[in-house]
Amino acid sequence: MLRTLMRAKGWDAVVVTGSDPHCSEYPAERWKQVEWLSGFTGEAGDLVVTLDHAGLWTDTRYFIQAEQQLAGTGIALHKMRVPEQVPIPDWLRQQFGDDALIAVDGLCTGAGFAQSLPGTVLSVPDLLDRFWTDRPAIPQTPIFTVDPGETRREKISWLRAFLRGQDCDGILLTALDEIAWLLNVRASDIEYNPLVISYLLVTRSEVCWYVLKDKVEDQDSRATFSILEADGVRLHPYSDIDYLPSEFQGRLFVDASSLNYQLYSTLASDGVALEEGTSPVGLRKAVKNAREIAGMREAHLQDGVAMERYLYWLEKSVAAGREITEWDAAVKLGQLRGDQKDYLGDSFETISAYGPGAALPHYITPQQDAPRLEPHGLYLCDSGGQYIFGTTDITRTVPLGPCTPLEREDYTLVLKGHIDLAMAVFPKGTAGCQLDVLARNPLWQSKRNFGHGTGHGVGFFLNVHEGPQDIRQNFNRQPILPGMITSDEPGIYREGKHGVRHENLILCTEAGRNDFGEWLQFETLTLCHFDTSAIVTSLLTEDEREWLNAYNRRVFETLRPRLGEAVATWLEQKTRPI
Amino acid sequence: MLRTLMRAKGWDAVVVTGSDPHCSEYPAERWKQVEWLSGFTGEAGDLVVTLDHAGLWTDTRYFIQAEQQLAGTGIALHKMRVPEQVPIPDWLRQQFGDDALIAVDGLCTGAGFAQSLPGTVLSVPDLLDRFWTDRPAIPQTPIFTVDPGETRREKISWLRAFLRGQDCDGILLTALDEIAWLLNVRASDIEYNPLVISYLLVTRSEVCWYVLKDKVEDQDSRATFSILEADGVRLHPYSDIDYLPSEFQGRLFVDASSLNYQLYSTLASDGVALEEGTSPVGLRKAVKNAREIAGMREAHLQDGVAMERYLYWLEKSVAAGREITEWDAAVKLGQLRGDQKDYLGDSFETISAYGPGAALPHYITPQQDAPRLEPHGLYLCDSGGQYIFGTTDITRTVPLGPCTPLEREDYTLVLKGHIDLAMAVFPKGTAGCQLDVLARNPLWQSKRNFGHGTGHGVGFFLNVHEGPQDIRQNFNRQPILPGMITSDEPGIYREGKHGVRHENLILCTEAGRNDFGEWLQFETLTLCHFDTSAIVTSLLTEDEREWLNAYNRRVFETLRPRLGEAVATWLEQKTRPI
Repeated sequence: MLRTLMRAKGWDAVVVTGSDPHCSEYPAERWKQVEWLSGFTGEAGDLVVTLDHAGLWTDTRYFIQAEQQLAGTGIALHKMRVPEQVPIPDWLRQQFGDDALIAVDGLCTGAGFAQSLPGTVLSVPDLLDRFWTDRPAIPQTPIFTVDPGETRREKISWLRAFLRGQDCDGILLTALDEIAWLLNVRASDIEYNPLVISYLLVTRSEVCWYVLKDKVEDQDSRATFSILEADGVRLHPYSDIDYLPSEFQGRLFVDASSLNYQLYSTLASDGVALEEGTSPVGLRKAVKNAREIAGMREAHLQDGVAMERYLYWLEKSVAAGREITEWDAAVKLGQLRGDQKDYLGDSFETISAYGPGAALPHYITPQQDAPRLEPHGLYLCDSGGQYIFGTTDITRTVPLGPCTPLEREDYTLVLKGHIDLAMAVFPKGTAGCQLDVLARNPLWQSKRNFGHGTGHGVGFFLNVHEGPQDIRQNFNRQPILPGMITSDEPGIYREGKHGVRHENLILCTEAGRNDFGEWLQFETLTLCHFDTSAIVTSLLTEDEREWLNAYNRRVFETLRPRLGEAVATWLEQKTRPI
Repeated sequence: MLRTLMRAKGWDAVVVTGSDPHCSEYPAERWKQVEWLSGFTGEAGDLVVTLDHAGLWTDTRYFIQAEQQLAGTGIALHKMRVPEQVPIPDWLRQQFGDDALIAVDGLCTGAGFAQSLPGTVLSVPDLLDRFWTDRPAIPQTPIFTVDPGETRREKISWLRAFLRGQDCDGILLTALDEIAWLLNVRASDIEYNPLVISYLLVTRSEVCWYVLKDKVEDQDSRATFSILEADGVRLHPYSDIDYLPSEFQGRLFVDASSLNYQLYSTLASDGVALEEGTSPVGLRKAVKNAREIAGMREAHLQDGVAMERYLYWLEKSVAAGREITEWDAAVKLGQLRGDQKDYLGDSFETISAYGPGAALPHYITPQQDAPRLEPHGLYLCDSGGQYIFGTTDITRTVPLGPCTPLEREDYTLVLKGHIDLAMAVFPKGTAGCQLDVLARNPLWQSKRNFGHGTGHGVGFFLNVHEGPQDIRQNFNRQPILPGMITSDEPGIYREGKHGVRHENLILCTEAGRNDFGEWLQFETLTLCHFDTSAIVTSLLTEDEREWLNAYNRRVFETLRPRLGEAVATWLEQKTRPI
């Protein structure tokens, strides 16, 4: 069908990306076009259809999954993040030179990516709508306000000061977490991400929120809208963003990394003077204020209680010989988080993986026929919760019984890396890429490594992945600043055998000033003990052992008042110093 | 006088930089214009003269020296590498806006810097000649050939392959160490740097070396020229480079980082099609071949013998109560290096610093009234030699008797950092900035730090500082490759008290391949023991202690056959395991 349309229109290729109109990392169902067209469900994948070829581009993480899901579809797998990779723009250039007519759904294609394509790029909004008859609507969930210690009026004033500094008349916010942060609003438009699908224009005198969907709004949203209108926010239909390019007067600041091609090209063709740059909201949002930090601490208390109850249940159940699958375990953890009073949902899909499954960093626990947990070896669980005042993300690797020497060594060396990064003290101005090796060095010393980043930023009751800082082997110059919350999650993955990852969230804090300058350090927010039974103690330095004992003791003492007697007694045992 | 000229010519400002026509780090006497004009002898300084102001721009390292040397000259000090710094281009813009007429000696001004200046920049070659009547001539020292395992014909073929790949007709090499490397020639035109002042043009069919100076050439140089002519190298007068812009046909590759503004602007105004980029010679030169590595090993053997004899002499002399100054010690070390059969000179000016002097990383040992070495505390000596088959660079910090607890801690923590970097194992592709923290972390843990890089590249019988790799807190993406030689020199500096630096040269080598990829490691080339008497053993990990004992043992066993009995016996004592 698509090819018939292509022939009729004279398109040489159609490029379908796995993104939404806001370049979100995780799109809502409405924008899962790649999945609808190809059946591929991986989190990163783009499709190209020509008259005689159809291909899916994805990276190392999803090769096996893609091969299975594409079998019989006639869609070829194009591998990325391999030395011989041919990215989509290069591939199209090889096929058509610079003369192609390429159609994209400009709404779901980032402006930067579209500009990298060769030939003429035609933006066709909702291109697949004529075939995708049961396509889900734009999400519309109840919108509510939050109180993170700074009012939206304060934030808008700050943003206007930025506009004056940039000599701009307005800024268009397109990244959904930036809009939620600025307006102090949340909803559930995207699974796991408490966001409102919308655009926000802030000018020197107006705040225009393009948020109204077709349907009647619910009561919560109406209440929220009243509050915002009282703060001077003007509400517009979501689709009225189409009129912005012809109506806006003056110089407009945009961040191309979250701007879709349709909007970008309309702004450009309507002659709006664009100032392209990095939105200042990202960095400001990453530096948490005192109230947000206090909230994150409370979220981690509740999350720690759920996690410890979970680990207690897990150990007792496996010891009792009960039949538990990876799926059962994930469900149980969800229930225990659900018992916490301020829990609102998970912050991402729980990875519950036993043995070989844990060797896939992005393993998806199957609901049907999930592997059973056995009373030996390592079980890995990576999960997180959204709380009204914070977001959590934690990985524990749990020995379910006797472990092989290799499992124990891997467990210990990854923990060494985790601890060495957590113990870091560093001068103000240091970037995450300059700290990353602390978490890898213990593994590198025995020629082991892991293929993902060591740390990502985490939002305040927002996305579990946010920038601009990170801790990985890149050249990101963003310094780690006091108030930033980042994960610390080294790992190791042995195909067909086991996987280990130890993850806490760490908060950057001030550590004083002396003759050598200003110093920063990390405070661990996550509260859940590390199991010491799989540790090869001789591989730890004295400092590492002391850190571990102090951390486990702090976990026990902090959580004890919130745990029942059975779990508390058990946790006291589990946290005995080594 | 200069201002009279400025008024006559209508120049608003004259900028005089401390560079030579090849953007060398260390210029020959002829190009020490800043020193001649201002009296300032620091290694980094630029002058700006306007009709009512004269200023010297230099960085933190030279503030004290500049204040002393500029006293009474009427020249103001402009501080760089401080938060409130105003670089020369910004300062000129503040003074004159964008309308100034600024004169520079285009030969001694880098193209990039000149282009950053505001207003109209006029290139006046040898601008100061009309005042500087006793200006030294262009250096001309005997040129000889070296045999580093690859012929100049092979190197030229490789460079021509690069030209074809870049679709260029020629490449102009302007960096002196790149020319020496490509032609396998050396001389002594610049103190400490075995270079020939010259330009080199390599086209697809010709090699033109602009090297002939006014005077009759010496016998060595004539022999060298014959050999090169037989290899197809055409010799031209050095000054004939002026004709290149009008004569060159086609597309010319140039590296603006070593191209002077006079040549750059003439090439541009004569319409030569310039392809600007990074010269490929720098990276190729940094990766040493097997013969160069073997040569570097032998150089370090000879250097190690000299160093150990020196340290023996130092310890015995101080113990005997002899009066020795920092200067005497430096002279003695030079004599002992001079005894080595293949030593040709120092690779930089020896830093010989006792106590507070050592707290200045770039201390210059005074010939007159140098401080005396006392039988307590720390003495720091940073020195290196040029050998016919290698270049060395070593720093040892020597306890001359009892040390304070702070001195011992600093000594130990810096050594920990040195060892941790030396022990690094890392995946292929890792850049120096991603390893740097290994050398700093032991200091950071107690909130100590040092303000210079951890490591710089070292040439093969060439410059003691070379790129493109380094190990420091920057974002240099150049991976550390097998065959690269880099220094490992963490330190600590306490004003008015003491300084510590421990420096070896380390060679990157292959360390095998496994499931996790390809691995690299370092091999220490420098052979000279670390004194264990000032170490706080409890601060070392087991691995660090083992590394240190193994290194000291290797130094003793390797050097023993070349040392006399007295020094060997002493060294055996000094290298006893701790």
